[in-house]
Amino acid sequence: MTYHAPLKDMLFVMQELAGLSKVTALPGLEDYDFDTAQAVLEESAKFCEGVVAPLNRDGDKNPSTWQDRAVTTTPGFKEAFAQFAEGGWQGVIHPTELGGQGFPKLIATPCAEMLHAASLSFALCPMLTDGAIEALLVAGSEELKAKFAAKLISGQWTGTMNLTEPQAGSDLAAVRSRAEPQADGSYKVFGTKIFITYGEHDMAENIVHLVLARVPGAPEGVKGISLFLVPKFMVGDDGTLGARNDTWCVSIEHKLGIKASPTAVLQFGDHGGAVGYLVGQENRGLEYMFIMMNAARFAVGMQGIAVADRAYQQAVRFAHERTQSRDLAGSDGPVAIIHHPDVKRMLLTMRAHVEGARALAYMAAATSDAAHHASDAAVKAHNQVMYEFLVPVIKGFSTEMSIEMASLGVQVHGGMGFIEETGAAQHYRDARILTIYEGTTAIQANDIVGRKTLRDKGAVAKALCAQVAITEQDLAAHDNEDCAAMLNALRQGRLALEESIDFIVANGKTAPKTVYAGAVNYLKLAGVVLCGWQMGRAMMIAQEQLDSDPAFFGAKVITARFYADAVLPQAAALSQSIRQAGETTNRMAIDMF
Amino acid sequence: MTYHAPLKDMLFVMQELAGLSKVTALPGLEDYDFDTAQAVLEESAKFCEGVVAPLNRDGDKNPSTWQDRAVTTTPGFKEAFAQFAEGGWQGVIHPTELGGQGFPKLIATPCAEMLHAASLSFALCPMLTDGAIEALLVAGSEELKAKFAAKLISGQWTGTMNLTEPQAGSDLAAVRSRAEPQADGSYKVFGTKIFITYGEHDMAENIVHLVLARVPGAPEGVKGISLFLVPKFMVGDDGTLGARNDTWCVSIEHKLGIKASPTAVLQFGDHGGAVGYLVGQENRGLEYMFIMMNAARFAVGMQGIAVADRAYQQAVRFAHERTQSRDLAGSDGPVAIIHHPDVKRMLLTMRAHVEGARALAYMAAATSDAAHHASDAAVKAHNQVMYEFLVPVIKGFSTEMSIEMASLGVQVHGGMGFIEETGAAQHYRDARILTIYEGTTAIQANDIVGRKTLRDKGAVAKALCAQVAITEQDLAAHDNEDCAAMLNALRQGRLALEESIDFIVANGKTAPKTVYAGAVNYLKLAGVVLCGWQMGRAMMIAQEQLDSDPAFFGAKVITARFYADAVLPQAAALSQSIRQAGETTNRMAIDMF
Repeated sequence: MTYHAPLKDMLFVMQELAGLSKVTALPGLEDYDFDTAQAVLEESAKFCEGVVAPLNRDGDKNPSTWQDRAVTTTPGFKEAFAQFAEGGWQGVIHPTELGGQGFPKLIATPCAEMLHAASLSFALCPMLTDGAIEALLVAGSEELKAKFAAKLISGQWTGTMNLTEPQAGSDLAAVRSRAEPQADGSYKVFGTKIFITYGEHDMAENIVHLVLARVPGAPEGVKGISLFLVPKFMVGDDGTLGARNDTWCVSIEHKLGIKASPTAVLQFGDHGGAVGYLVGQENRGLEYMFIMMNAARFAVGMQGIAVADRAYQQAVRFAHERTQSRDLAGSDGPVAIIHHPDVKRMLLTMRAHVEGARALAYMAAATSDAAHHASDAAVKAHNQVMYEFLVPVIKGFSTEMSIEMASLGVQVHGGMGFIEETGAAQHYRDARILTIYEGTTAIQANDIVGRKTLRDKGAVAKALCAQVAITEQDLAAHDNEDCAAMLNALRQGRLALEESIDFIVANGKTAPKTVYAGAVNYLKLAGVVLCGWQMGRAMMIAQEQLDSDPAFFGAKVITARFYADAVLPQAAALSQSIRQAGETTNRMAIDMF
Repeated sequence: MTYHAPLKDMLFVMQELAGLSKVTALPGLEDYDFDTAQAVLEESAKFCEGVVAPLNRDGDKNPSTWQDRAVTTTPGFKEAFAQFAEGGWQGVIHPTELGGQGFPKLIATPCAEMLHAASLSFALCPMLTDGAIEALLVAGSEELKAKFAAKLISGQWTGTMNLTEPQAGSDLAAVRSRAEPQADGSYKVFGTKIFITYGEHDMAENIVHLVLARVPGAPEGVKGISLFLVPKFMVGDDGTLGARNDTWCVSIEHKLGIKASPTAVLQFGDHGGAVGYLVGQENRGLEYMFIMMNAARFAVGMQGIAVADRAYQQAVRFAHERTQSRDLAGSDGPVAIIHHPDVKRMLLTMRAHVEGARALAYMAAATSDAAHHASDAAVKAHNQVMYEFLVPVIKGFSTEMSIEMASLGVQVHGGMGFIEETGAAQHYRDARILTIYEGTTAIQANDIVGRKTLRDKGAVAKALCAQVAITEQDLAAHDNEDCAAMLNALRQGRLALEESIDFIVANGKTAPKTVYAGAVNYLKLAGVVLCGWQMGRAMMIAQEQLDSDPAFFGAKVITARFYADAVLPQAAALSQSIRQAGETTNRMAIDMF
């Protein structure tokens, strides 16, 4: 088996760290409990391990191909997607009244993690479809919802997000695609979109493109962008497919990784105009896009955790199998390389990062559930701002770490890691997109500095620090060496984070360039400390439950301790860099590079 | 132009930091001075920029191919190699009496850097040939030298190093290839070697393989390995090529990067035995191999610096050209992304690492020159131990950083970085081998912990720290903010390094696994601090010379300051990890992963 879903850790995190029982006590989520969660996760694992994971290497070796404006996906992908749809997996998080399963995000999240770990390329299709569904549900008319949402939720059709244009990467203000209103209330859409994930493929009958474009007379910049639904095939009132719409895939990209996932250049309206339907109101497209984006950003964070875990599992397997050199403590002959201290260090580094990031992400998923379902409005609002703070951290930090962890995975393999056949290199290539799409790390970092820290003068950030401080108090009450080491490291980390928040709040207005030059390191610092916080909590709980499962909980304690010993110390360095290097960066004139 | 040799920085480092005038005052090197160095570098730049650099992308798109036991290299490589040979570049560092140019290593090193930056794949062929020449010169008989060395030095033939076998990656004790003595004094060699760089190609008339194998009755392990010269074509006494030898390339690898460089599986002796000649004495092969290895390890460190610099240059170019989003301080429309603070931070990070690592490597090259040429035996010996300490740092640290810097290069490109067409991704793929071949980072780290620190109880390591402390005193005498910041950061770094040396020396015997679990971080710590030391020296000199070239020296001061602000603070985190995480790593039993 090339991927083994870490159900034990997933369920531990859900139950003990993310508060599954609190989530399933929320109004509307009472149908779920630990047993249903476990059953769902086991089913998901069966599908992801058995059907999708084996396709991952195939997808890399035989990527999607383009011919005559059509894309053929990797052999096996179409069949796997049919099984995915049949199993109801596309609907996991969507409303039951439209055929979805309505699971809490906390239960949907480990399912998503497994799918991403099984194949980043494959999982992108459902991920983008989720975004399209979300936008439709939030902003679409009843008519649009009725016609399109259920078919997307069932997995019969798939969805895309069309933002980027050749002249405008992350800068949506520069969007030029246009939509002309027609007499029947529809629009004709014209323009070129690039980097469209699964913009064309053969895995479903129809593709529902959500496209940003400008209506005539719209204001300049991001305030003049509207959102349109443009189907690949026209859909009759009875739901049957009609004529081909004027939207064509003119090429797909030759990419470093995630090669099975077709990245399309889409041409809208070259033959008279693509029929599109306005989603929500004119000029509010950016707002709707951000709804999709928040979901997608969290999902990309999960991709980071997923690919890091898969790289970890592969490295562990190799390290057990590969025999080389004697043991440092003496041995008759060569031993499995997992005995060598540096191999263990690399594997523990990977493990600690995966477990820490998983814990923070699941915790955030529970926060999102509370934001949607809590009965008290203040509780809802509190959870919503917490979640919004955490999303860029999870997106940015989990993906940045995933690149490093995939690289360590290659390193564990030695020379074999550089040979494509081994598969370790694929994770290193695949992971490299994660810090770029759905908003680069810098964009996440600008979000956390600007909208999430400066706007409220650090209130939410400090509230999270206060929660970390409570965990420190708990650790102080535990009289053992591991908790003492964790307490010390976590406190240093939290103080470094507070120091950085103060610096950002103090200087954000007067010296924005100085502050924003430290934005990515601020994001990383938040990630290091908040994941460390979860590892601190995990350490105490694992110590209490040690006797019930010494292997699992013993490993958890050691992994958490390693996080304290080797990861949390980076917090001070990041904080220093945030406070010192911004002004230096400013001094470097652009022609000095 | 895709690569611009940074002659100004190279000459600055040679003259001001590495002490070029001291090197050219050494006995036997008096023919050289600054002007000859400059002239050589300019010629080298012309060749590397104009002839080799344009082939780099071709090599990636059209890698070497294998058919019928023969390898065809990328179109253009053969012609470029002929020009390389014609220009005398293969002989740069080799003795004049054999047709070489006999340059000091300090002058040869920037030439090598340029060639690696122009194309890692291309430069590997000369690099391996250098290793073969070195081994021949040190250990080969006069007859072997006469027959083979001059043709290698002229670039007419090329050389390889054959260490690795399928069952034994880095573990040379497991070498199984065997060599049977023949009546005429030659040997018949049998065995399979893998990962042989340029083990077969069409760029030269003959290939001289240096092969590790065992003679009958040789001791077990590394003490029973001998070194053999096995030519692809037999060579007559008059130097003419004769029959094809029994050494065949049975396949080449499909690799993540450096695709133009053929990585061969070589089969020796499947058709009766490959004729080989003993180099030096039986059972001393490992010793000779280490001579080649030391040169090759330094060279791979240069590859790291080179590819990081090329990735930097490409990122700077892209950041100037790519327009996107308004300036943070306000602008009418989108600006070049180099104006955005995080892009500047990424570029400065790359620049600071490249300049720091270059300075340390050139300094080490000068140390090697003094070790070879100083008239005083004690001075020679002192420089030799210093150089031997620095080689694993340069190999390990420069290559580890090169992966991170190439990754940042991709990030600067955003989505375009993930498209292979842009070329940024190639550096990310190419760089990934550098921490693996010629000894993984862990092997470098074990070397620096075991042979270079524990053996002399940290004497050489502490002597380097004492030199850093002298630079701190110099900085303290400079009354300005940049020097004050550098002084503080460098002192913290040096103290962190000393603390780690003490920890290693104190625990190396009693708790070796604990100590070796921190070996890679010790290597990185040494790299961070010693490169920072050079940047501290550079800062003071640049301040003094500021008026003579404000753009260059101004950038140097800011880059050095950035190193102090953003890179040196990592030293404390590395030191903590070294001292804390080893014991935790030990506690993790191998079946807990």
